[in-house]
Amino acid sequence: MASILILNGPNLNLLGTRQPEVYGHVTLDDIAAQCRAHAADAGWDITFEQSNHEGALIDWLHGARGVHAGVILNAGAYTHTSIALMDAIASIEVPVVEVHLSNIHARERFRHQSRIAPVAIGQIAGFGAKGYILAVDALIDHLEQLGTA
Amino acid sequence: MASILILNGPNLNLLGTRQPEVYGHVTLDDIAAQCRAHAADAGWDITFEQSNHEGALIDWLHGARGVHAGVILNAGAYTHTSIALMDAIASIEVPVVEVHLSNIHARERFRHQSRIAPVAIGQIAGFGAKGYILAVDALIDHLEQLGTA
Amino acid sequence: MASILILNGPNLNLLGTRQPEVYGHVTLDDIAAQCRAHAADAGWDITFEQSNHEGALIDWLHGARGVHAGVILNAGAYTHTSIALMDAIASIEVPVVEVHLSNIHARERFRHQSRIAPVAIGQIAGFGAKGYILAVDALIDHLEQLGTA
Amino acid sequence: MASILILNGPNLNLLGTRQPEVYGHVTLDDIAAQCRAHAADAGWDITFEQSNHEGALIDWLHGARGVHAGVILNAGAYTHTSIALMDAIASIEVPVVEVHLSNIHARERFRHQSRIAPVAIGQIAGFGAKGYILAVDALIDHLEQLGTA
Amino acid sequence: MASILILNGPNLNLLGTRQPEVYGHVTLDDIAAQCRAHAADAGWDITFEQSNHEGALIDWLHGARGVHAGVILNAGAYTHTSIALMDAIASIEVPVVEVHLSNIHARERFRHQSRIAPVAIGQIAGFGAKGYILAVDALIDHLEQLGTA
Amino acid sequence: MASILILNGPNLNLLGTRQPEVYGHVTLDDIAAQCRAHAADAGWDITFEQSNHEGALIDWLHGARGVHAGVILNAGAYTHTSIALMDAIASIEVPVVEVHLSNIHARERFRHQSRIAPVAIGQIAGFGAKGYILAVDALIDHLEQLGTA
Amino acid sequence: MASILILNGPNLNLLGTRQPEVYGHVTLDDIAAQCRAHAADAGWDITFEQSNHEGALIDWLHGARGVHAGVILNAGAYTHTSIALMDAIASIEVPVVEVHLSNIHARERFRHQSRIAPVAIGQIAGFGAKGYILAVDALIDHLEQLGTA
Amino acid sequence: MASILILNGPNLNLLGTRQPEVYGHVTLDDIAAQCRAHAADAGWDITFEQSNHEGALIDWLHGARGVHAGVILNAGAYTHTSIALMDAIASIEVPVVEVHLSNIHARERFRHQSRIAPVAIGQIAGFGAKGYILAVDALIDHLEQLGTA
Amino acid sequence: MASILILNGPNLNLLGTRQPEVYGHVTLDDIAAQCRAHAADAGWDITFEQSNHEGALIDWLHGARGVHAGVILNAGAYTHTSIALMDAIASIEVPVVEVHLSNIHARERFRHQSRIAPVAIGQIAGFGAKGYILAVDALIDHLEQLGTA
Amino acid sequence: MASILILNGPNLNLLGTRQPEVYGHVTLDDIAAQCRAHAADAGWDITFEQSNHEGALIDWLHGARGVHAGVILNAGAYTHTSIALMDAIASIEVPVVEVHLSNIHARERFRHQSRIAPVAIGQIAGFGAKGYILAVDALIDHLEQLGTA
Amino acid sequence: MASILILNGPNLNLLGTRQPEVYGHVTLDDIAAQCRAHAADAGWDITFEQSNHEGALIDWLHGARGVHAGVILNAGAYTHTSIALMDAIASIEVPVVEVHLSNIHARERFRHQSRIAPVAIGQIAGFGAKGYILAVDALIDHLEQLGTA
Amino acid sequence: MASILILNGPNLNLLGTRQPEVYGHVTLDDIAAQCRAHAADAGWDITFEQSNHEGALIDWLHGARGVHAGVILNAGAYTHTSIALMDAIASIEVPVVEVHLSNIHARERFRHQSRIAPVAIGQIAGFGAKGYILAVDALIDHLEQLGTA
Repeated sequence: MASILILNGPNLNLLGTRQPEVYGHVTLDDIAAQCRAHAADAGWDITFEQSNHEGALIDWLHGARGVHAGVILNAGAYTHTSIALMDAIASIEVPVVEVHLSNIHARERFRHQSRIAPVAIGQIAGFGAKGYILAVDALIDHLEQLGTA
Repeated sequence: MASILILNGPNLNLLGTRQPEVYGHVTLDDIAAQCRAHAADAGWDITFEQSNHEGALIDWLHGARGVHAGVILNAGAYTHTSIALMDAIASIEVPVVEVHLSNIHARERFRHQSRIAPVAIGQIAGFGAKGYILAVDALIDHLEQLGTA
Repeated sequence: MASILILNGPNLNLLGTRQPEVYGHVTLDDIAAQCRAHAADAGWDITFEQSNHEGALIDWLHGARGVHAGVILNAGAYTHTSIALMDAIASIEVPVVEVHLSNIHARERFRHQSRIAPVAIGQIAGFGAKGYILAVDALIDHLEQLGTA
Repeated sequence: MASILILNGPNLNLLGTRQPEVYGHVTLDDIAAQCRAHAADAGWDITFEQSNHEGALIDWLHGARGVHAGVILNAGAYTHTSIALMDAIASIEVPVVEVHLSNIHARERFRHQSRIAPVAIGQIAGFGAKGYILAVDALIDHLEQLGTA
Repeated sequence: MASILILNGPNLNLLGTRQPEVYGHVTLDDIAAQCRAHAADAGWDITFEQSNHEGALIDWLHGARGVHAGVILNAGAYTHTSIALMDAIASIEVPVVEVHLSNIHARERFRHQSRIAPVAIGQIAGFGAKGYILAVDALIDHLEQLGTA
Repeated sequence: MASILILNGPNLNLLGTRQPEVYGHVTLDDIAAQCRAHAADAGWDITFEQSNHEGALIDWLHGARGVHAGVILNAGAYTHTSIALMDAIASIEVPVVEVHLSNIHARERFRHQSRIAPVAIGQIAGFGAKGYILAVDALIDHLEQLGTA
Repeated sequence: MASILILNGPNLNLLGTRQPEVYGHVTLDDIAAQCRAHAADAGWDITFEQSNHEGALIDWLHGARGVHAGVILNAGAYTHTSIALMDAIASIEVPVVEVHLSNIHARERFRHQSRIAPVAIGQIAGFGAKGYILAVDALIDHLEQLGTA
Repeated sequence: MASILILNGPNLNLLGTRQPEVYGHVTLDDIAAQCRAHAADAGWDITFEQSNHEGALIDWLHGARGVHAGVILNAGAYTHTSIALMDAIASIEVPVVEVHLSNIHARERFRHQSRIAPVAIGQIAGFGAKGYILAVDALIDHLEQLGTA
Repeated sequence: MASILILNGPNLNLLGTRQPEVYGHVTLDDIAAQCRAHAADAGWDITFEQSNHEGALIDWLHGARGVHAGVILNAGAYTHTSIALMDAIASIEVPVVEVHLSNIHARERFRHQSRIAPVAIGQIAGFGAKGYILAVDALIDHLEQLGTA
Repeated sequence: MASILILNGPNLNLLGTRQPEVYGHVTLDDIAAQCRAHAADAGWDITFEQSNHEGALIDWLHGARGVHAGVILNAGAYTHTSIALMDAIASIEVPVVEVHLSNIHARERFRHQSRIAPVAIGQIAGFGAKGYILAVDALIDHLEQLGTA
Repeated sequence: MASILILNGPNLNLLGTRQPEVYGHVTLDDIAAQCRAHAADAGWDITFEQSNHEGALIDWLHGARGVHAGVILNAGAYTHTSIALMDAIASIEVPVVEVHLSNIHARERFRHQSRIAPVAIGQIAGFGAKGYILAVDALIDHLEQLGTA
Repeated sequence: MASILILNGPNLNLLGTRQPEVYGHVTLDDIAAQCRAHAADAGWDITFEQSNHEGALIDWLHGARGVHAGVILNAGAYTHTSIALMDAIASIEVPVVEVHLSNIHARERFRHQSRIAPVAIGQIAGFGAKGYILAVDALIDHLEQLGTA
C-alpha cells in the first residue's frame, strides 16, 4: 500500500492559465508529473485527481480507506467553508496533509480560516508547485514515523 | 401516497465505521431496515437515500413533490451551511422533519446553527439510530393532524 | 426505580390559553395525562411538575437523584439563559432529555441557543404535545441501553 | 375591572436608601401612595407589589388576567435579561407599560437592552417617581382608547 | 422664560398620512395644538418646529439657549445615528426630554439605540401623540424641581 | 402623471471630474439628457435633481407624492447610513428604484449595506451611466405591471 | 462569438411553482425564451442552463472561455456562500453580470452578502424576470464598450 | 457587629458529591465549619447560607445591612448573568468579597465574566475550600483597614 | 492661489461656551484670527467657515477646487459618520489636513473612528486651539514639498 | 527546595508612587519584606524579582524549574496580552498562583481577560499588598496538598 | 529642567531604508538633529532614544520623572498592542505627546487603535519627519500653559 | 552569501522537555544540527538563534540584511500578537519562511491568526522538527528561483 492520493479541488484544473500573478504558469499536469517523479525515488505511487464538485472530493476521500496510505489535499475554495470535507477526513483513518499554492494567510481574511486544518496533520502554504513536493516529503516522513509505510 | 422519503447527507454512508464513539456501530442500512419495519406497522412506505453531493439532495427534495407525503432529512454537515437546501425545502410543499444522530447542540459551536430548522416542522437530535424512529413517529403524527395521510 | 420526572419551566402553566397560534390548545394537564398513559404501557411511572421559579426547577433536579431514573425537561425561557440549570444537570447523575413544544430554532435568534443542550442526551423540538411522548420513548430507549431500567 | 397592577422587581424595595444620587430619596411606599391618589382621581384602583424573585413577578403577571385592566412594570435588573418575563407578558392578554426610575439608555451598555419592550405598549424612563404617574396616565389613556376601561 | 421648544425631525411632517398602522392618523399640527392647550393650563408657552434637515435641528437647539426653559425632541431617524445632535444637546445648558411616537425598542434592532438618550433627562416612547403630552408634564415637573420654572 | 423623478445625492454633481477611474467621464447633465431622451420614446417625462444635503433629498421625496409616478434614487454615500431616507421612502406611496454608478458590492465593506434597499423595488449597480437607462426601463416596466402608468 | 451564456443555480428550476409571492408565476423556460427573443434583436445568441450542483456551475463557467463573450449568472443561494464560484469567475477572462429575481438586499440578512459581486461587472436585483432582460442589455452595452462584441 | 455573612448560590448544596474532579470531596458543611473555626480565632462570627434561588440571595444581601460587617459571596452560576445581584451589592453599604471554588477564568468562556466583580472588593478563585479561608482573611483585613471591625 | 480654506463642522460655533472642561474658553473667532495672523507671516490667506449642515460642508469642499491650495477640516461629529464627506475629499484634488480640538482617541469609543482620515494627509488631535496653528504649519509644509505653494 | 519565586511585571517597580488612588502607598520592597516575613513563619524562602521586560519574566519562569517549588506571578499589563507567558507557565512543571493588586475585573474591559489564568492554579485580585500574603498562603496550601513541600 | 525626551520604538532605527514609499528617505538621526535645532531656538534640550524592546521604552519612560519636562513618543507597532506602555505613561507624572510618521488612521484597521492615546495629551500623525517638529511645538505650548516650563 | 538565518522565539529553548505530547522529544540543538547537515548538502550555511525577547528577534532580523540570503522564523507565541515583528520583516529586504512545530490551525482559536504570514513567503505548520527541514528546502527553492542564491 505504498500509495498516496493527491486530491485537488475547484478551479485548480485551470492552473497555469488562471491569475498567473498569484499562481504561476505551471499546470496541474506538470505538478502531477513532478510529484510522481519525486515520490517514485522514495518508492511511492501517486494517484492524482481533480474535481470542481465538493461531493466528488468526499467520495474520493472515502475511497482512500484501505487503498492509500495517506492523502495530500488542496481543497481550493472549499477549504474555507466545507464542514463536510472536515467530517470526511475525520471519518476515514488515513492521514491528510493540507497544501495550498498561495499563502492563504496573506490574502483576503476569509481565506485565513481552514475547515480542514483541525483534522489534518499539518499545512503547507505559499510555495507554489514546490509545496506539493514538500507535502509528499512531509507525508512520507509522517507515515514512516507511524510505521505505516 | 402513504410514502415517506428519508434523505441522508455527506459521510452518513460511512456510518458504523466512522467515529463510533460519537455515532455508534449501527450502519445506514440497519437504520433503513428499522425505519421500513417501523413504518410498515403504521401502513407507510419508506424510500431511503444517501449522497455526499449537496446538489443531489436538492434534486431528491424537488422530486418528492407529488410522490412522498413527507420527508425526514439528516443533511449532515450541509445542515450548518446550505442556504440552497433551506430554499429547496421552502420551495416544495412537503413537510420536512430534521434529524441528527448526535446532539449537535452539545458539539462544536458551528454545529449549533441549522440552516434547515427555519423551514422544518421540528428537530430531533442526539438519540442515534433511535432518532430516525422518533422522526417517523413525529412525521406521521404531523401528517395525520394535517389530514394528509 | 422505574420512574421518570417531567419538569416544566416558566409560563408553561398557561399552556392552552397562551399564544395558541404557536403552542396549540392542549393544556399541561392534558400532556401529563398523555405521558402517564403512554409510559404506563411500558411499565414506567411519571412525576410531572411545573414552576415559574428557576430555583424551584433546580431544587427538583437535585431531588431526582436516587428517586427517578431519568428526567424530561422543558425549561421554557430559562433554556436560553440559565447556566445554573446547566450546572444542576451536570451535578446530578441522572440522564436528561430536553423537549420544546415549538421549534426553537425557527423562532427569534435568542431562542436558538440552549444552555441545557451541552449536558442533555438529546433534544426534541417543534412537535407540540407529541414531543413529550417522543421524549418519553427516547428516554426509556436510552435507559434500556444503559441497563438502568 | 377599573384596576391597575403595578409590579416592581429586584432591589426596588430599597428605594430611598439605595444609591440616592441615581434614584433619589423617595421610597417605594411613597410612590405607591402617589399612584393611588393620582389614579383615584380618574376612578381607578391600584394594586402595588414588589419582589426580588423573577418567578414571583411571573406569577403575579399570570394572576392579572381577568383581574386587572392593565399592568405597569418596573422589572429592575430583570428587564435586561429575562426572556421568561417577556414570554409571561406575551402570554397574558393584559396591556403592559414599562417604567424605569433612571434613564436606562444613559447608563451602562447592558442596561440599554430591554427584553420587555418588544411586548410592552411603551416605555417611560428617567423621570424618577414622576415616571410612575406618567405611566398611570399613559396606561389609562391606552385603555380608554381600547374601550377596555 | 416660561417657554418650551418642541422639535421634530425628519418625516414627521408627513404624520397622519405616513404608515398609519404604526403612527396613527393624528397630524403634527394636531399634536402642536394639543401641546399648546395642555401647557397653557400650566402657564407655559410652546414653540413647535419641524425639519428634515439635521443641521436645522442643531441650529434650533443652539437657539434655545436663553430663550426656552426646556426642549422636547423627537429627532425621528436622526435619533439613531446623529452624534452631532448629541453634542448639540450637551453643548447647550437646556434640559431635553426625548419622545418617540412608536415604541422604538419594539421595532428593528437599529432603532433600539438612541444617540440622544445619554444627554437627555429621560425618554418616552410608544404612546403616540399622547407621548408629547406626557413629555410636557415630565419636562415641567423636571423644571419645577430644578426651580428653573 | 406620466412623470419620473430622478434624485441624485452627495458628490454626484462632480461626476465626470471625480475619480474617473471609478466613475468615468460622463457628467450628470449628460445622464439627465440621456434619461430624458430614452424616457421620451416611451412617453414619459423626467425631472432630474441633485443635492449634497440629506434633508433636501427627503424634501424632494415628500414632494413626489401625487406628482411623479415613480422615483429613481442614487443616494450616493447617504445610501449606507441614512435611516431618514429609508423612512422617507416608506412614508410616500411612490415606488423607488435604487441605482449606483459603481458596483458598491465590489468596493469597501461599508458600501455593501444599503439602508434604501429594504424599501426599494430593486437595485442596479455597477453599469455606470447605463445603469440610469436600465433603471428607467425597470421602473416603467414596474409601473406598467401595477397599471399606474 | 456573439454569444452569451446565462447560468441559473439551485432551485431556479422550480420557478413559477416556488413561493410565487416572492418570485412570481413565470417559469425559467419563459425567461429563456424572452432572453433569446430580446437578444436576437441585437444579433446575439443565448445559451441557457440550470443546475442545483455548485460544481456544475463551475464547470460551465470554465467552459465559457473562448465560447461565449459574456455570462449572466443567477447563482441562487450559492451567491451568498460560494467562494469557489467567486474564484471561477476570477479565473476565466469572461465578463459576468449578476442577476437576482428578488431584491436580495431587502430579505434576510444572510442574503445581503454576495460572494460573486466582487468579481462581477454589476448587479441587478428585484425586478423579477425583467431583470434578465436588463442584464442582457447591460452585458451587451459593456461588451460593446470593450469592443469585444 | 463582628459578624460576617457567607452566601452560597445554586448547586453549591451538592458540594462533595458534584463533579468531584472539578470541586473535590469537601461538603459545604465542612467549609462552614472550617470558616467558623478560622474566624473565631480572630474574634468573628460567621452566618452561613445557601440557596438555589436568585431572589433568596438578594433578600439575604438586603438583610445584611446593619447586621453583618461584611459578606463573602459565592454566587455560583448566577455570577455570570445576574445584574440583579450586582445591583443588590451596590445597594447595600456592606463590603463584599467574591469567592469561587474553581478557577473560573480557566474554564468555559462564559464563566470568565463576573457581574459581581465590578461591585466587589476583590476576587479569589481556584483554591477550592481553602479559598473561603483566604476570603475570610481578606475581608477581615479590609474591615480592619476601614476601621469597621 | 496662496490661500487656505479652514472648515468647521457642527457645534463648533458654540466654542468657548460649550463644555469648557473639554474644549477651553477660546471662541471660533479667536481661532480664525490666530490662524490668519500666523498664516500671514508665511504669506498665506485664510478663508474660515463654519456650518452645522453636512451638506454645506460638502458644498464648500467642492468650491475649494481651483480656489484654495489646501483645506484644514474640523468636521466635528460628522468626522465619525460621514461617508459623504470622505467622498467629497476624495473627489476634489485639494489636500486636506484633519484637526480636532480634543484628543478624540482618548474619548468615547465611537469617536476613535474617523471617516475622513483615510483621505486626509494627516491628523492633529488634542491640542485645543493650538492644533489649528499646527495644522496650518503642517499644510504649508506639505504644499511646499509638493511645490504647489 | 522550600522556596517560592515571586515575579512582578511592568510598572510594578513604581508601586507606592504610581496612581495611589488605585494601588495605595506601599512599595514593592515593602511587599517583598512582608512576604519574606510571612513565609519564614511557615519555613519557606522567597525570591522576589521585577522587570519591565516580557522576555525577562519568561527567562525567570524557565529558571524556576528545579529551583523553586512554586511561583507567584503578578504579570501586570502583560497579563492581558502575553501568550508567551502563558506558554512559559505551561512549559515548566511548577505551579503558579496569579495575583493582582487591583480588582482587574472591576476596571476597563481589556483588563478582565487574563492570558495567564488558564494555566494558573487560581487568581487573587483586588486586595492590594494583602493579596501577596494570601497568595503565599494559597500556594503553600496547594504545595502541601500535592506533597511537594 | 527645560528638557524633552523623544522616544522611538521598534523598527524606527531603519528609517530612511525601510518602505520609503510609506516613510520617506529621512533617517532617525536627521530627525534628531532637526528636533534639536528647532527646540534650541526656544531654549529647550532634546534627549533622543530608540529601542526595539518594549521593556526598554518603559524603563526610559520611568526614568523621565524629575529629569524631563515632557515626552514625545513614537511607539511604532507597540502603539497598537502595549497596555504596559499605557500604564507606564499613566504612572509617571510627565505629559506625553504621541507622534506617528504615517497617517495610522488611513492604513490597516489594526493600526487605527492606539493604546497610548487615552493617556497622551494629543496625537499627530501623517506628516512624516515634520510631525516631530509639530510635536515639539505642541509639547512646549502645553508645558508653557501649565507653567511647567 | 549562501547563508540562512533560523530564528526561534519564546519558550522554544525548552523544546524536548516542554509538553512533549504536543512538541515531541527533540531538542532545539538537535534541530539546529539537522538543519546544518541538511543545508550543507546543498552548499548553504545556517546561523541558528533563540530568544524569549521580542526585541532581540527584531534586532536579529535587522541584522540579517546584507548577511543572510533568507530567514526561517518560528516566532512562537509572538506569531499571534507581534505587529512589531511583522513590520521588521516588511522593513528588511530578506525573504522569510514561517515555520511552526505544531499545527497552529488545529489548536486554540487565538493561535490561528499569524501576524507574520502577511509578510512571509509561506507557512509550514504541524510537522514537528521535520518542518524545519521542509522550510530549508522551501527557502532554498525560493532563493534559487529569485536567482539570489
